Amino acid sequence: MVGDSLGTKLISLGHKVMMGSRTADNEKAIEWTNRNGAHASNGTFADAAAFGEIVFNCTSGKVSLEALQLAGRENLQGKILVDVANPLDFSNGMPPSLTISNTDSLGEVIQRQFTDVKVIKALNTVNCQLMVNPGALKDPGNIFICGNDAGAKAEVENLIRSFGWEKIIDLGDISAARGTEQLLPLWVRLMGKLGTPMFNFSIVQ
Amino acid sequence: MVGDSLGTKLISLGHKVMMGSRTADNEKAIEWTNRNGAHASNGTFADAAAFGEIVFNCTSGKVSLEALQLAGRENLQGKILVDVANPLDFSNGMPPSLTISNTDSLGEVIQRQFTDVKVIKALNTVNCQLMVNPGALKDPGNIFICGNDAGAKAEVENLIRSFGWEKIIDLGDISAARGTEQLLPLWVRLMGKLGTPMFNFSIVQ
Repeated sequence: MVGDSLGTKLISLGHKVMMGSRTADNEKAIEWTNRNGAHASNGTFADAAAFGEIVFNCTSGKVSLEALQLAGRENLQGKILVDVANPLDFSNGMPPSLTISNTDSLGEVIQRQFTDVKVIKALNTVNCQLMVNPGALKDPGNIFICGNDAGAKAEVENLIRSFGWEKIIDLGDISAARGTEQLLPLWVRLMGKLGTPMFNFSIVQ
Repeated sequence: MVGDSLGTKLISLGHKVMMGSRTADNEKAIEWTNRNGAHASNGTFADAAAFGEIVFNCTSGKVSLEALQLAGRENLQGKILVDVANPLDFSNGMPPSLTISNTDSLGEVIQRQFTDVKVIKALNTVNCQLMVNPGALKDPGNIFICGNDAGAKAEVENLIRSFGWEKIIDLGDISAARGTEQLLPLWVRLMGKLGTPMFNFSIVQ
């Protein structure tokens, strides 16, 4: 779902997008490709990582590291990896817990395991529809970004801006992912309370 | 600091307040009493717990359980305990981690250890000056409340409303404290980024 939303938006903005899956014949990926025209294609995680100049990790946080191993270190090397995943664990029912938290984060683990990749944590605090369409809310609120490489962060910030986000807050290095990932337990509670995933946080002063 | 802010506000609203400390001759508590007139007094944690109809836990989250043990089970029995504390651990420097998190929270631990007490988690997502003066922000944003006892929650909600808070979100039972306590890592990052603790979160839709 997250990959579908982001891929479709990127295509609509004129980018070429390859959707990666565990296997090259993933039905949903083929359907997505057919729906998105000549700039859309699909393949394995490794195919997509080799294809992309910027790679998005849109997998479930619990399996992100496995997916990135399949994508291949050599295919990711030197590239920007936008990590929009959250390490949510629903295996014990609701509310979900986090598989990584407090003194570490998924963003940091990925950065440590892929030292040659420029990991940028972004967009993980909103629902995937809102990620690519902040205008769906009367007040879109803030979106958070963090990562160690300033140049990569600026590039991702431009991309997010092209999605329609205006109030982007740079929280600093990748360790700030602890903050945005640990926002999810409150996010999940609020979704239950509000009865919709279409909401966001706005920082007020 | 948190007890001073809340106590002073409660006095200004016409309540009688006893400030509890580890010892009855705590200098800051005496100074607070002298500053706040006839409705203010101070004593031990046990004195304050016995005195209050509603008890506020304004201690540092790391020592809250110890302070509540000193307050005494018999003095707290049947009462509302408003838990505004966060289990922040600064012992390894910045950024702080949480001593309890993810699958548990300070609010829940207190509720489990004091089963006869009506624990209401509230106000822990804002700085203590803002707790009692939401009007200090152009847009005060939202304040969160949770707890197992609906009657106690309504009473605390009224109290918070008397502080000036209008947009109060009831997140449900005390396990929602996981959400509000785990907001703190992001809060601390934002404080560093914004250069001030005078900000809040507003839920936008």
